[in-house]
Amino acid sequence: MSIVYDERVDGVLPKVDKAALLSELQARLPDLDVLHTEEDLKPYECDGLSMYRTTPMMVVLPEHIGQVETLLKICHQRQVPVVARGAGTGLSGGALPLEQGILLVMARFNKILEIDPAGRFARVQPGVRNLAISQAAAPYELYYAPDPSSQIACSIGGNVAENAGGVHCLKYGLTVHNLLKVEILTVEGERMTLGSDALDSPGFDLLALFTGSEGMLGIVTEVTVKLLPKPQVAKVLLASFDSVEKAGRAVGDIIAAGIIPGGLEMMDNLAIRAAEDFIHAGYPVDAEAILLCELDGVEADVHADCERVRQVLEAAGATEVRLARDEAERVRFWAGRKNAFPAVGRISPDYYCMDGTIPRRELPGVLKGIADFSEEYGLRVANVFHAGDGNMHPLILFDANQPGELERAEALGGKILELCVKVGGSITGEHGVGREKINQMCSQFNSDELTLFHAVKAAFDPSGLLNPGKNIPTLHRCAEFGSMHVHHGQLPFPELERF
Amino acid sequence: MSIVYDERVDGVLPKVDKAALLSELQARLPDLDVLHTEEDLKPYECDGLSMYRTTPMMVVLPEHIGQVETLLKICHQRQVPVVARGAGTGLSGGALPLEQGILLVMARFNKILEIDPAGRFARVQPGVRNLAISQAAAPYELYYAPDPSSQIACSIGGNVAENAGGVHCLKYGLTVHNLLKVEILTVEGERMTLGSDALDSPGFDLLALFTGSEGMLGIVTEVTVKLLPKPQVAKVLLASFDSVEKAGRAVGDIIAAGIIPGGLEMMDNLAIRAAEDFIHAGYPVDAEAILLCELDGVEADVHADCERVRQVLEAAGATEVRLARDEAERVRFWAGRKNAFPAVGRISPDYYCMDGTIPRRELPGVLKGIADFSEEYGLRVANVFHAGDGNMHPLILFDANQPGELERAEALGGKILELCVKVGGSITGEHGVGREKINQMCSQFNSDELTLFHAVKAAFDPSGLLNPGKNIPTLHRCAEFGSMHVHHGQLPFPELERF
Repeated sequence: MSIVYDERVDGVLPKVDKAALLSELQARLPDLDVLHTEEDLKPYECDGLSMYRTTPMMVVLPEHIGQVETLLKICHQRQVPVVARGAGTGLSGGALPLEQGILLVMARFNKILEIDPAGRFARVQPGVRNLAISQAAAPYELYYAPDPSSQIACSIGGNVAENAGGVHCLKYGLTVHNLLKVEILTVEGERMTLGSDALDSPGFDLLALFTGSEGMLGIVTEVTVKLLPKPQVAKVLLASFDSVEKAGRAVGDIIAAGIIPGGLEMMDNLAIRAAEDFIHAGYPVDAEAILLCELDGVEADVHADCERVRQVLEAAGATEVRLARDEAERVRFWAGRKNAFPAVGRISPDYYCMDGTIPRRELPGVLKGIADFSEEYGLRVANVFHAGDGNMHPLILFDANQPGELERAEALGGKILELCVKVGGSITGEHGVGREKINQMCSQFNSDELTLFHAVKAAFDPSGLLNPGKNIPTLHRCAEFGSMHVHHGQLPFPELERF
Repeated sequence: MSIVYDERVDGVLPKVDKAALLSELQARLPDLDVLHTEEDLKPYECDGLSMYRTTPMMVVLPEHIGQVETLLKICHQRQVPVVARGAGTGLSGGALPLEQGILLVMARFNKILEIDPAGRFARVQPGVRNLAISQAAAPYELYYAPDPSSQIACSIGGNVAENAGGVHCLKYGLTVHNLLKVEILTVEGERMTLGSDALDSPGFDLLALFTGSEGMLGIVTEVTVKLLPKPQVAKVLLASFDSVEKAGRAVGDIIAAGIIPGGLEMMDNLAIRAAEDFIHAGYPVDAEAILLCELDGVEADVHADCERVRQVLEAAGATEVRLARDEAERVRFWAGRKNAFPAVGRISPDYYCMDGTIPRRELPGVLKGIADFSEEYGLRVANVFHAGDGNMHPLILFDANQPGELERAEALGGKILELCVKVGGSITGEHGVGREKINQMCSQFNSDELTLFHAVKAAFDPSGLLNPGKNIPTLHRCAEFGSMHVHHGQLPFPELERF
């Protein structure tokens, strides 16, 4: 796909005098690393969503906040668009660069500034990797709860921008629930603090507004995250099912039994086999679906809950329920799940990872719907997802070298997301909207709601220089895209009912 | 205090033609209850903060959302300011009416629309009382976690507007952490949904932004809250101390030991004696301070944690540690705490309840600072508060009939809040800013930050009709108030260092 920012529908970007900008940067920020040759720029043409690629006009790699401050002031004065990027692991093209813009790479801000075990927080720079926070907190028996599958590589600044989740967010919440404070630079290069060290902050909750705003409201320069005490014990149950619908129903049964698992994940046969081939986790390759249910807390509690969950799973028709025998097997069970995406990558030339949420009760029906779409479009779909919180990740398998397959994959993905919205869910759980789902936002929200989003954006960034073309579609794009608004399952015309 | 909206510093409100407005309301909404005579209006002149009083121009008591919709359209067209009110229990004057505005009372929207035990949510109208939700969910062994002391009377719409907390929010979070979805009407009378039934919602997090926005961004018409499974067991420890500083340090020690209590509350001697006189909770009236520490979960877990907390308390110098013998005693211990405000009301003609948050580690020093201020201003201060999350509630005792005492109480309150900001905390934990702390917002935030708040407000309500004069001060007010900005403890001039 070549055109990723389309001025016809996304708005006209200012024309940038590249040579003049470059010489001003070199004059005012002589220590700043600036990449501007074709070969230097190439590695930055996409993030974790490789379907869309654009060569940025320029890439900057600052090392001091003062550099970012000056850079933003220069860009603001010259009206140069700026796209921020952390580790580049995002899956919705949120850090996709612009041909006429600067890509601001924050990866070198990788210092852990403070761990306060009594206050239970860590203050870190935005380029610090998610897992590095938990590693630094480990000596105090504390950890940072949100754990996206990319946690070994993804940075906390990107986690804030995308409001990242993970396999444990059913119990411990998303990024937004685990933040105390974020320092940002505004589009004008002014420093600002959102949130506070205290529990609550007066005025409007700009910290929550900022979290998940995908680089459109400001640049993260420092993050203070909450740390939690490590659970004393964690156990994982692996349950096999002979149908995905039964597994889907079992998820609702566990929650209805009053249990809050640390994680509750589901994989279907295609995902099971791919992961098993790759990781040798010990998964039952003949099962149509498995559930991984983690219970954590104190010994007695976990032991009792394991028994209750086992009973619920058996009553729901599980053909086998296995408790990980030891910590090594527990880690292996999770390794299979966390590596499911690359595992699927081994069995198909390309795959397209979707990310939609639905109310839990809709799981069986939506899984059936996805199977039907898969057949209709002639493309395999592997399901591996955060079942407990209704956050689905269908992986659509295709071969971009086969004419038409990419377009079919995109269309199939769109159908799945529309189905999510239709049953009362949403088009993204944790990967963000970015460039990928910009059109589906026209289905999720009506024009009044989109207008309100734009007004909020304008409150922070009136000239729209920060990450333009992502997250919130222009009304013009929605008109062009021609999507019917299917807000909360209410189709305006019954004859359009297609699910 | 007579002038509560001051056009010199809060902005000029539109002049309203009351007679014309009344006749339009009567013509277009014949079923709507409209109060407009002096005697009918009197009961609405203040909310739970009785220090400020204004007689509203008109009070409306709608019963159907359609009425609110039309009312807002009329008010928008005529540029009539609107102040929303729930049960009127708020403690910061957030629902204080305007002489030139409509007071929109949402108390009659008191229906519980849906309890979904499997989805673990309740969908209710905004006038439903906080406690009524837990009562309706009780048959399913579920409850709604945030429990402000006023929970028997306060309404969920008001809880959303003020982001209410309670004694259990240390473990279970504030209102914002327990919401799934809010239906609102915009200032133009348009219906809008913020949040979703799913875990996350794409676009900006307007649900979190709206929560705690104190009626300035829209009118709540429906709330979907999360329900939690009731803990199997809850136990309360009562620890006595011979100094408030020791009790303050014990709070930090409990948290540092890796325990997350369901609630962790502190009361000083004045509060203990007042509560004991009123409720006969069995408190030790000779103690300088007590801590109430609740532990909840499964039996074995709670039992083990009780022992650990007892050890920590004893090591911190507690003179006595008592475990509530049974459920009746546990309820009595909490009744004393939850009725501490009215109890203090019995020993003083008037009291002024403050609400500030501080980082937990600052507790001992801030308690000392409050004692010093109390002496300096010659007014008694009772302390009773959510110690675990650093949310203080100093109650300043005074007699409004003694010339100058009200002003001294206000000044003393201001000093306490400045101290909170100074040590890295904030001027409100859960009661909101409202009218009460509008001046202190000038200390908490700088003009860039206030400008951003105003821009966000304008995104929702460009003409500023919703609850004007509350929550976010105008820059003009801050200039007039002349406050030094003491953001995050950084005083601009060291010679102003006074604490």
